[in-house]
Amino acid sequence: MAQYPAVGAVRKIGILGGGTIGASWSAFFLSRGYDVVAWDPGPDAEAKLRAFVDNAWPQLTELGLSAGAAVARLRFVATPEEAVEGCDFIQESAPERLDIKQELYARVDAVIGERTIFASSTSGLVMSDLQQGLKNAAQFVVGHPFNPPHLIPLVEVVAGKDSDPAAADWAMDFYRHVGKHPIRLKKELKGHLANRLQAALWREAIMAVKEDVASVEDIDAAMAQGPGLRLALMGPHMIFGLAGGKGGMGHFYDHIGPAMEAWWETMQETPKLDAGLRQKLIDGVEDEAAGRSIDQLEAERDDKLIALLKMLQAKG
Amino acid sequence: MAQYPAVGAVRKIGILGGGTIGASWSAFFLSRGYDVVAWDPGPDAEAKLRAFVDNAWPQLTELGLSAGAAVARLRFVATPEEAVEGCDFIQESAPERLDIKQELYARVDAVIGERTIFASSTSGLVMSDLQQGLKNAAQFVVGHPFNPPHLIPLVEVVAGKDSDPAAADWAMDFYRHVGKHPIRLKKELKGHLANRLQAALWREAIMAVKEDVASVEDIDAAMAQGPGLRLALMGPHMIFGLAGGKGGMGHFYDHIGPAMEAWWETMQETPKLDAGLRQKLIDGVEDEAAGRSIDQLEAERDDKLIALLKMLQAKG
Repeated sequence: MAQYPAVGAVRKIGILGGGTIGASWSAFFLSRGYDVVAWDPGPDAEAKLRAFVDNAWPQLTELGLSAGAAVARLRFVATPEEAVEGCDFIQESAPERLDIKQELYARVDAVIGERTIFASSTSGLVMSDLQQGLKNAAQFVVGHPFNPPHLIPLVEVVAGKDSDPAAADWAMDFYRHVGKHPIRLKKELKGHLANRLQAALWREAIMAVKEDVASVEDIDAAMAQGPGLRLALMGPHMIFGLAGGKGGMGHFYDHIGPAMEAWWETMQETPKLDAGLRQKLIDGVEDEAAGRSIDQLEAERDDKLIALLKMLQAKG
Repeated sequence: MAQYPAVGAVRKIGILGGGTIGASWSAFFLSRGYDVVAWDPGPDAEAKLRAFVDNAWPQLTELGLSAGAAVARLRFVATPEEAVEGCDFIQESAPERLDIKQELYARVDAVIGERTIFASSTSGLVMSDLQQGLKNAAQFVVGHPFNPPHLIPLVEVVAGKDSDPAAADWAMDFYRHVGKHPIRLKKELKGHLANRLQAALWREAIMAVKEDVASVEDIDAAMAQGPGLRLALMGPHMIFGLAGGKGGMGHFYDHIGPAMEAWWETMQETPKLDAGLRQKLIDGVEDEAAGRSIDQLEAERDDKLIALLKMLQAKG
């Protein structure tokens, strides 16, 4: 990894795409004391980006700013070339279309520094497709955050077939250095990993609505008032590792494995998200909201999320 | 529901089975200011039960005791008949075997008060099977907690085919009254609901290990550092309801629905928990534990869980 700079030497970060994800990344990197240079071609993009950062700043302040962190260190530029010029790291969050990203990558490829890592926030595409034909393909990796990136620690790092594995290693180190919790995927997978785990849960939660097992509100409570409480504290494998108590995980498998396999046998169906089922889900969530607006619900969620993150920070 | 007492009038609770679940229920009901009469036929059952309660008491104290709550209000008796005598509510957590439970139910059935609700903690059996042939079958329902019951709010209430629906309604009211978050299942299902949702997640998490997508530690982090953080705050349907932002849930389905369905198509496989895969899971969790003992990991989990529950209490 000698060819890449020390992660501690990074000073300036280029942001390509200033939508919800790019704006959230901008706010995050500013909060960690970096210079941020952002580009987005959309109408009012600069105003929207700055509004997002201003709005996120009190949350980031509550979670703790790095020395020198300042909103004023955000600069908005007119071209992707300007955004990446002299940058030590680039985070791309352009629209999720192969053609749009490839066109952007070609422009960046022509000017990117030879020691600069380029990470894509893509959730639905894979780097092997995105990096095709690039001169500097080796420096391009996936760094997929979980929304909103300025609050949620997870980043999924994935190398494409033309990526330098050391570039992915560097991205792991860098994200860790800035306080994220990166994980390294050993292979490219549609949707990466976290969204697939979430989709697996969601599939069963939707089947429960379809089969009228309980109200949408009760199905939500079945997670949030039960297993969901632990899933904020440790992952599913460790949860089950501890479920066996002093007997350990082997004991747990002896005990619950056959039941689990029997449940799986009855969980083979995948719902079709047709109009009727969609309406049932939408109506159910509306009942659950009980008159609270989306703004109110978002504010409740973020307020609790920040309190949760602070608690986890404090507990180490 | 005129035939059942007001939930606020309950004073004495019978506990049948004093293993991990029954002991945890005992501690919980004591903390809410009830008289608890417990029975378990196992060797040293009373000593084990009292040790559990003593151990849980500081946690329950931290979460807040009800007026009059006292460990001294626990009485241990020699027979199930004595345990249920004069009780206003019975929580059964006997071993998960149909024959054992049915024999116990028959004994209770002979002496149960006509206004007393009997709730079973069963996770793997259904009430329609358990209540067969009971004179007072109508009063028997499932009240399935999530482990450990003294900390986790969720209780799944399910009526069997011979249960009085009003008995299930009463159990919902009573659990709510004591500070639990009960949900009402509209049908009997193997594993009820929460464990099935968890099993769906676990299936995909195990497939990721089997397919070597990432290390066990990273797969765990994919949940706990990402989607898991929100699952402690709200259920999957509400999370997705808010994921569409101001556009609402319909917008979200338009946007992510097709991708989700495409992921599901590639998520049709159910792992076989054979010796090789079990060992891979066990080794992975051991790596993740990085030398921490089960006791240490349990202590970390419970410490964070109590902090999380307190935070959620405070935020309402």
